Amino acid sequence: MVLPDGASSPDILISECGPRDGLQILSQIMPTEAKKRWIAALHAAGLREIEVCSFVPAKLMPQMADAAEIVAFASTLPGLTVLALVPNLRGAEAALAAGAHKLTIPVSGSEEHSLANVRRTRAEMVEEVRRIVDYRNAHAPHVPVEANISVAFGCTIAGPVSEDEVTRLCVSLVEAGVDDSGLSDTTGMGNPVQVKRLFTRVIGEIGEKIGAAHMHNTRGLGLANVLAAYEAGVRIFDSSHAGLGGCPHAPGASGNVVTEDLVFMFEAMGVKTGVDAASLVRSRAILSETLPGAELYGMLAGAGLPKGYRPASPGVMHGQP
Amino acid sequence: MVLPDGASSPDILISECGPRDGLQILSQIMPTEAKKRWIAALHAAGLREIEVCSFVPAKLMPQMADAAEIVAFASTLPGLTVLALVPNLRGAEAALAAGAHKLTIPVSGSEEHSLANVRRTRAEMVEEVRRIVDYRNAHAPHVPVEANISVAFGCTIAGPVSEDEVTRLCVSLVEAGVDDSGLSDTTGMGNPVQVKRLFTRVIGEIGEKIGAAHMHNTRGLGLANVLAAYEAGVRIFDSSHAGLGGCPHAPGASGNVVTEDLVFMFEAMGVKTGVDAASLVRSRAILSETLPGAELYGMLAGAGLPKGYRPASPGVMHGQP
Repeated sequence: MVLPDGASSPDILISECGPRDGLQILSQIMPTEAKKRWIAALHAAGLREIEVCSFVPAKLMPQMADAAEIVAFASTLPGLTVLALVPNLRGAEAALAAGAHKLTIPVSGSEEHSLANVRRTRAEMVEEVRRIVDYRNAHAPHVPVEANISVAFGCTIAGPVSEDEVTRLCVSLVEAGVDDSGLSDTTGMGNPVQVKRLFTRVIGEIGEKIGAAHMHNTRGLGLANVLAAYEAGVRIFDSSHAGLGGCPHAPGASGNVVTEDLVFMFEAMGVKTGVDAASLVRSRAILSETLPGAELYGMLAGAGLPKGYRPASPGVMHGQP
Repeated sequence: MVLPDGASSPDILISECGPRDGLQILSQIMPTEAKKRWIAALHAAGLREIEVCSFVPAKLMPQMADAAEIVAFASTLPGLTVLALVPNLRGAEAALAAGAHKLTIPVSGSEEHSLANVRRTRAEMVEEVRRIVDYRNAHAPHVPVEANISVAFGCTIAGPVSEDEVTRLCVSLVEAGVDDSGLSDTTGMGNPVQVKRLFTRVIGEIGEKIGAAHMHNTRGLGLANVLAAYEAGVRIFDSSHAGLGGCPHAPGASGNVVTEDLVFMFEAMGVKTGVDAASLVRSRAILSETLPGAELYGMLAGAGLPKGYRPASPGVMHGQP
């Protein structure tokens, strides 16, 4: 579990993945200036790690054509860890050249999803991760590399995913040199018992190298699964502003856990996030403006913060949204 | 905790409150025949307790004018506990005359909400509950009476609600003779830590007399709060088909926990509900048809059951919705 500098005061790290996971699924392309405004607003709300883009060929994913410019912009925001997704060594080289602070590599938990998503087996992906780590060690030793297991709790192609195999995959990735490895419920198929069981088991194997719980709200269980992961000892949570997001290779997968609802849950529970839920609710306006017609998720935005709400994080403004 | 006859096989009791809690908030009135079709579909999906109506003056709540006819119809469905909400002795007399199998009485957790909702103090409501129990003892001793604390986790008028006072209120209600007493998050202000703490405390005081967790999804925490209540030992959960519902005296309160999502969560977790989630998804069509324009909530309906889904309940059909 690698916490970024300056984030030692919050109890958990919320890693905002909207600008990458949210935008990649949309057919429309958010203009670069809008992305900058959005990322600045997320930072202003207190988020200290943002997955700002992925480094993939622009012809495959034109939404991410401005990745290098976005990394350069995000790097100007004080205290922010600028996270970039890279599917392979070529992407990692580009991300490091652009100045990304941290790399995240998705590795599928099922062979079927791996072949459909990156046309490689899981074993081939572990080798690719090893090459990325070697490259990082040689050229940017201060940049953490994480690898998260996609479809760790179920796969739209394979159905159930072996917990033995997911656990072994995490161990292989740590042996390959990643700084942490997390588990993603890419298509929202997990349930709290399963989430707690698998995270507990993986933590038993890789200990402090455990990374993020990346939960989707596809079937409404997103926050219950986050709670289960928290109870298992996870302290990094991926989520997406307004719940934007999904997976292009996982049909029917929509809806990351909503950052503002997640922040509200933890702050109300007494767990410090360092993030201002009300500010996140207000900045949904940027999405309505710049992504006309895109579906925005989340319940806090409609209901507002409850009367007498007292967030756990000190010094964070929490006005009524 | 009073489980109805025939429900000893499931691990938990889901008490469907849509026909009462869902309909009372809507301005449109569901026709009596539509209500019957809906209740029959809920029963066919495996639900074995349904809060079918409230006994209140028809001029105050015309949506419930057909309460007696609905109770008579629901009583023909085999194995179903026909639950009716009654706010006072007059309502209880009418409900028992109509043949309701079980009565539920709401008692506010805050003085402010109590006065706004029923123009009575909480102490006056405890006295009213005692009169209802006395009447029940004299005229229908086989009919269980439950009293649930509204706004137990926060009040839109008063803000935070004293956990000492809620606990004492539950004890007073049990002393007044109710069969069980549960806690309602009427306006979706609770969080999992609070829910677990307060249920644990109340169970410590009233033990097996603990009733339902009635959670709302107002701010997206509904299922996380259900999970917290389950972990505290609660085994009865109120929920509403398609998340219909709210409270007319709690502004901004919308969205009961969605029955189909709740069933999916528990069945996936290995907790038997006896209810078929796919059947509930299909019967949302009755609501779209008969309540045009009403907002239907829930995530399972859009996503469908996951590939390889294996529900815990044996003998329940779980087709793809």
